Amino acid sequence: MGSALALSARGRGRTAPNPNVGCVIVRDGRVVGRGWTAPGGRPHAEAMALEQAGVAAKGATVYVTLEPCAHESARGPACADLLTAARPARVVIGAGDPDPRTDGKGAERLRAAGISVIEGTRADEAEAMMAGFFTRQRLGRPHVTLKLATSLDGCIAMADGRSRWITGDAARAHAHLERARAEMILVGRGTLEADAPKLDVRLTGLEDRSPRRAVLTGGKAANGWESLKSPGDIAALDKVDHLLVEGGAATAAAFLAADLVDRLLLYSAPILIGGGRPALGDIGLADLSAAHGRWRMTDQRRFDADSLDVYLRTR
Amino acid sequence: MGSALALSARGRGRTAPNPNVGCVIVRDGRVVGRGWTAPGGRPHAEAMALEQAGVAAKGATVYVTLEPCAHESARGPACADLLTAARPARVVIGAGDPDPRTDGKGAERLRAAGISVIEGTRADEAEAMMAGFFTRQRLGRPHVTLKLATSLDGCIAMADGRSRWITGDAARAHAHLERARAEMILVGRGTLEADAPKLDVRLTGLEDRSPRRAVLTGGKAANGWESLKSPGDIAALDKVDHLLVEGGAATAAAFLAADLVDRLLLYSAPILIGGGRPALGDIGLADLSAAHGRWRMTDQRRFDADSLDVYLRTR
Repeated sequence: MGSALALSARGRGRTAPNPNVGCVIVRDGRVVGRGWTAPGGRPHAEAMALEQAGVAAKGATVYVTLEPCAHESARGPACADLLTAARPARVVIGAGDPDPRTDGKGAERLRAAGISVIEGTRADEAEAMMAGFFTRQRLGRPHVTLKLATSLDGCIAMADGRSRWITGDAARAHAHLERARAEMILVGRGTLEADAPKLDVRLTGLEDRSPRRAVLTGGKAANGWESLKSPGDIAALDKVDHLLVEGGAATAAAFLAADLVDRLLLYSAPILIGGGRPALGDIGLADLSAAHGRWRMTDQRRFDADSLDVYLRTR
Repeated sequence: MGSALALSARGRGRTAPNPNVGCVIVRDGRVVGRGWTAPGGRPHAEAMALEQAGVAAKGATVYVTLEPCAHESARGPACADLLTAARPARVVIGAGDPDPRTDGKGAERLRAAGISVIEGTRADEAEAMMAGFFTRQRLGRPHVTLKLATSLDGCIAMADGRSRWITGDAARAHAHLERARAEMILVGRGTLEADAPKLDVRLTGLEDRSPRRAVLTGGKAANGWESLKSPGDIAALDKVDHLLVEGGAATAAAFLAADLVDRLLLYSAPILIGGGRPALGDIGLADLSAAHGRWRMTDQRRFDADSLDVYLRTR
């Protein structure tokens, strides 16, 4: 399942509205098939892995991060049917598929065909890896990551706006990798006008992974940019399951005030600015007790002298 | 030496102007004497450990975190002479004593008496543990720790000043322990007037370890408080080798602007405030590049959901 989760990561940010599933098929202790949802959502991970495995899939164990789909579509057959036809001995499933067209029916169909099914293996990790899909299914909108890069005293720039650079090369490279994991990246109008950011992925080999660009503005978007009038508009975005919000302070605050942030990426550099620009504007907090219990640290990393703390919204 | 360093911690914040030394004497694999500098600075760690060891010190190994002093004073004999008289086989020394009255003479005297001497064992840790003494010797002023307790977005309070509570019980208890490690604690006039903090140590068994209290103010100090007109006045403080600065933002900034902070204690809670009061006022930073290379993370701890990051000023 660990390998299947790693394969699932390959599709992150490229498979919306389909989940970025990973799949590994093992026969007699050897990997005979590996698959991950292709960009655009098809073929599915299971289809790719089964095609690789061929006849070796018969009697094998299939590890798949999400319950195989039970519904046929114009774009391809149901994975549960593909698996049934391939006759593996066993299917080990990560998370259940909340899509009402599957939601248990995939596992049921496998069992009905005499295949042994194990459900819920590393389900939390599987859901986290396919967070965009699960957020879309459960909350009807993309999964939103807010990135902040601050000094130790929580500033994103000096008082006059200078912000190059707070974090170092390694942390900034990681932030570019996070861009490649989103279908869309968004900044506020102020940031767009002040910094004219390209918001592209400047990592060797990932240049083609630059996400769509959006700006939060009441006005019109410039050429090459999409516009959102308010954070709530993200629900209507097509083929966006992962949105990365990169600031500035007013835009970050608008998303937080609307409780539309699921994940915080807090990069911090070992510097003090003092009297600089704060990371966040007003988020409508009524009192301090209301601020507690909303965020849980899930990862902590170092990039040279910089730190990255990752927090998830507890819901 | 590890045990000697741990014993040295007992005197931290209570031995100024003497160093908080730790000493362990081992004979035939057994600890026969343990000592640490007593409150007020006397007796010295070696004297206490030698007294415990008695005749067992002969032929033993003595571990001591600081080079034994070579100068007699009205308050007691030189530790190098006490050791010479006790005739241990070997003395293992942590850091060298920069006090010009010793500065190598202690080790020399031991060697001249035929005792084997090993210097520099875990010297960095020893210096860190006796940071107050070393800062006083090298920079002619107390070692200054600045404590900040912030939200993830770097706020120390809501916009209207409410700050109870940002961090939780465990982090606040640790902050009280840090108070017990300082001879003096300081806040700004604004904090004193707004919060009327007691600045005492509210930890069972350590109630008598509450440090002297000072306020940074151009005016007069209230009863029970000492006053400093500017951060630079700390050099003249008597019997203060460790100063803990607890805010607010203007006071913290004043110490940082004067480059008089040696250690940062950054407690942070997993909350977002947004548009709150920033941790620091203007520190006179000319440009971002000047902010880099000044702070090095040396410790990172968790207190329930809160984090503590400790940074040291690199000099």
